[in-house]
Amino acid sequence: MKLFSSVHDVPDLNALVTEALACKQNPFAAQHLGKNKTLGLVFLNPSLRTRMSTQKAALNLGMNVMILNMDKEGWALELQDGATMNGSTVEHIREAAAVLGQYCDIIGIRSFPGLKNREEDYSEAVFNKFVKYCGVPVVSLESATRHPLQSLADLVTITELKTVARPKVVLTWAPHVKALPQAVPNSFAEWMCKADVDFTIAHPAGYELNESFTPGAAITHNQDEALQGADFIYVKNWSAYEPYGRVLPGNEDWMLTNGRLAVTHKAKVMHCLPVRRNVELADDILDGPASVVILEAANRVWAAQAVLKEMLSTI
Amino acid sequence: MKLFSSVHDVPDLNALVTEALACKQNPFAAQHLGKNKTLGLVFLNPSLRTRMSTQKAALNLGMNVMILNMDKEGWALELQDGATMNGSTVEHIREAAAVLGQYCDIIGIRSFPGLKNREEDYSEAVFNKFVKYCGVPVVSLESATRHPLQSLADLVTITELKTVARPKVVLTWAPHVKALPQAVPNSFAEWMCKADVDFTIAHPAGYELNESFTPGAAITHNQDEALQGADFIYVKNWSAYEPYGRVLPGNEDWMLTNGRLAVTHKAKVMHCLPVRRNVELADDILDGPASVVILEAANRVWAAQAVLKEMLSTI
Amino acid sequence: MKLFSSVHDVPDLNALVTEALACKQNPFAAQHLGKNKTLGLVFLNPSLRTRMSTQKAALNLGMNVMILNMDKEGWALELQDGATMNGSTVEHIREAAAVLGQYCDIIGIRSFPGLKNREEDYSEAVFNKFVKYCGVPVVSLESATRHPLQSLADLVTITELKTVARPKVVLTWAPHVKALPQAVPNSFAEWMCKADVDFTIAHPAGYELNESFTPGAAITHNQDEALQGADFIYVKNWSAYEPYGRVLPGNEDWMLTNGRLAVTHKAKVMHCLPVRRNVELADDILDGPASVVILEAANRVWAAQAVLKEMLSTI
Repeated sequence: MKLFSSVHDVPDLNALVTEALACKQNPFAAQHLGKNKTLGLVFLNPSLRTRMSTQKAALNLGMNVMILNMDKEGWALELQDGATMNGSTVEHIREAAAVLGQYCDIIGIRSFPGLKNREEDYSEAVFNKFVKYCGVPVVSLESATRHPLQSLADLVTITELKTVARPKVVLTWAPHVKALPQAVPNSFAEWMCKADVDFTIAHPAGYELNESFTPGAAITHNQDEALQGADFIYVKNWSAYEPYGRVLPGNEDWMLTNGRLAVTHKAKVMHCLPVRRNVELADDILDGPASVVILEAANRVWAAQAVLKEMLSTI
Repeated sequence: MKLFSSVHDVPDLNALVTEALACKQNPFAAQHLGKNKTLGLVFLNPSLRTRMSTQKAALNLGMNVMILNMDKEGWALELQDGATMNGSTVEHIREAAAVLGQYCDIIGIRSFPGLKNREEDYSEAVFNKFVKYCGVPVVSLESATRHPLQSLADLVTITELKTVARPKVVLTWAPHVKALPQAVPNSFAEWMCKADVDFTIAHPAGYELNESFTPGAAITHNQDEALQGADFIYVKNWSAYEPYGRVLPGNEDWMLTNGRLAVTHKAKVMHCLPVRRNVELADDILDGPASVVILEAANRVWAAQAVLKEMLSTI
Repeated sequence: MKLFSSVHDVPDLNALVTEALACKQNPFAAQHLGKNKTLGLVFLNPSLRTRMSTQKAALNLGMNVMILNMDKEGWALELQDGATMNGSTVEHIREAAAVLGQYCDIIGIRSFPGLKNREEDYSEAVFNKFVKYCGVPVVSLESATRHPLQSLADLVTITELKTVARPKVVLTWAPHVKALPQAVPNSFAEWMCKADVDFTIAHPAGYELNESFTPGAAITHNQDEALQGADFIYVKNWSAYEPYGRVLPGNEDWMLTNGRLAVTHKAKVMHCLPVRRNVELADDILDGPASVVILEAANRVWAAQAVLKEMLSTI
């Protein structure tokens, strides 16, 4: 694997999940693979889980890790081709990416969307330019429209916990006070649509995701109906795709509470974190037995380790 | 040892000091202990000595180290239980701590007091919640009311330098331009009260420390009297405990200068650093032979290494 | 080598370049040298290439690396001797340097000039105090008036690429929107004046560099004349030395484009990066075959590795 940016980069989904679970069983078995190899982690935005879990995965594989908070430690990046750089940007992404590619064997990069210009965000301009110019294998640490390491960890978690061969998985929109990217729900949806699950998406009218991420998914505006018989409920807020990046009024009653779980098949509740307590998800769920959010976060290590291991085996 | 938050977590003070001095003699002797073990260092506030010395101690023990500047690289933390998180905080400490506990074998955390609400600060709400939810051994990198790695390094320094079996140690208040926490003096006091020293605290009226940290200490408002025959003088500013977090007017003449050392027993002058020159301590002391502040800072490595080594031997 | 602050610290320029090229051929050959040795990287200013390449060089040598963003993670530094620290500075450089020297075997430090007080900047007050008080070998990561790791990488690049025994090297001023330090051109000039090259400096009237950095260099205000027959063109903006730190009006036509390269001897175009595209250098050069800026940045690793290796062999 030379690129891990979406589910489409994964030749065999089951094999990658199996590899992640093998890493979890035996974290230090492949330390020879990473010897004298360097992972660069480049952050254009904040990160806790991704930063720490990907670093840990690389250390488990014997790699060196170098971290760059581009916005705070490096230089303000210019992203437009042809720009006359007489403003506030100091370095073009063409140079920054190419230079980092000289220092690292594999690079992970995080770049959130601006949520202003949908076409630009959905063209993955920043991420794709970085990939193009850095010249080494790249792992997405969340891009404008996807968060594939999260989705792989989610699938690992579902695989570990499922009690039926083909579980019902529901992605449900949740309220929030800010406009959030569609990256996590887009990504989760496209992974679930390829996985061996029965997949339903529930959201208020107006929060339709871009259809290219949801082929074959059942989509409903009725949350309670969606939850019927669910084995896993993936809770996440996102802003509207149309009008792009907007929070629509109302829908506070979409916050999941324990009471709503009664109709499920003893569903496990998932969230990628960070979660706004009592806005996205009630305390009673997060502090109760249905929540698997910490296991999900823990599985980020094994998802990243499986991906890095695959990449190390090709360089 | 599963927790290092105060002197009360140390079963045998002398043994820990002896271990620190052994680490100093032979820094790399226990590198097998840390192999494939990860120390997470989490900072909610700035740090120079603690950041670098604890990292160095872990590397000496063969550990991997992952650092998170929570405030700058991660997310704004919510600390209140039951909060409806519709404001500026993005992640609750319950999740943040629990997740970090999945990635780290031992965690160090620094969290300064707010100096607004004494009850909250003295309940060690942030530190204790972190300990409760992370689920792995925790080292305090300075909490609201204590700085135990500093105090251990201080005791190591006194042990190394003492010329009499039971030295006289004086903690003296010093002027400052800002309101500082009571963590360092509280902590130093409770360590000295348990150590084999003759311990005196000198401060202006109004700067009484919480009595639970000073059992058995001689306390005086007369600095010159306190300095008589002192072997070690520990200089430190702190704000008032009552009214909490306030700087009282006056007392600039409490700044120690070389002249005042004449009445001591060739006292060594200590300070945890950073020190405001010519406000807390005069240049002539810091640049003269009485100062041992750099040795004290150097001993931070061995204090941290002894604590981490103890913890590694229990996991 | 105990200090790497300028070309004057290098006993044998050719030997150091040869060492850098040997490191490039065999990056991991000297990992025993760095075992249990710690490099501290201290940044008072942003850094991308220097941060990542020096870290990589140290890892190649088997060293541990600890990074401190002094301004963001540590404390605001006081630089004046004798200061009464009752303002915004929290720690004096005397203590900060001395303490870091206790934790590190070698320290690299970056400190840009203020561009306000020429005498202060050119006395290298900050860098020299750090060297004086830290007590361990120091590598400049760019100081007020020099950037020697960059210059060494530049000489390595020229050595690798030259097609004649004694190439013509031209340092040419370029336009910019901000007042930049003279560190890179000063440093490049003093290295070229000692190297086996034919060295010319071209700049608009008013941008004369301090003469102590340019002994023996040909200096002209005519860019086209300077470019005649050039093998290497080093493009860089700098602010005026007199009046100090000022940007003089005009001179936008000094931006290099492909058209101007016609008179050269198939010149390679160099720049230390970051570069303002279409202000300092036109897109057509940076994206064309003449540019060697990425190779130059890549060579930063081998320059740093050669210097660190020299230092490790003396401690």
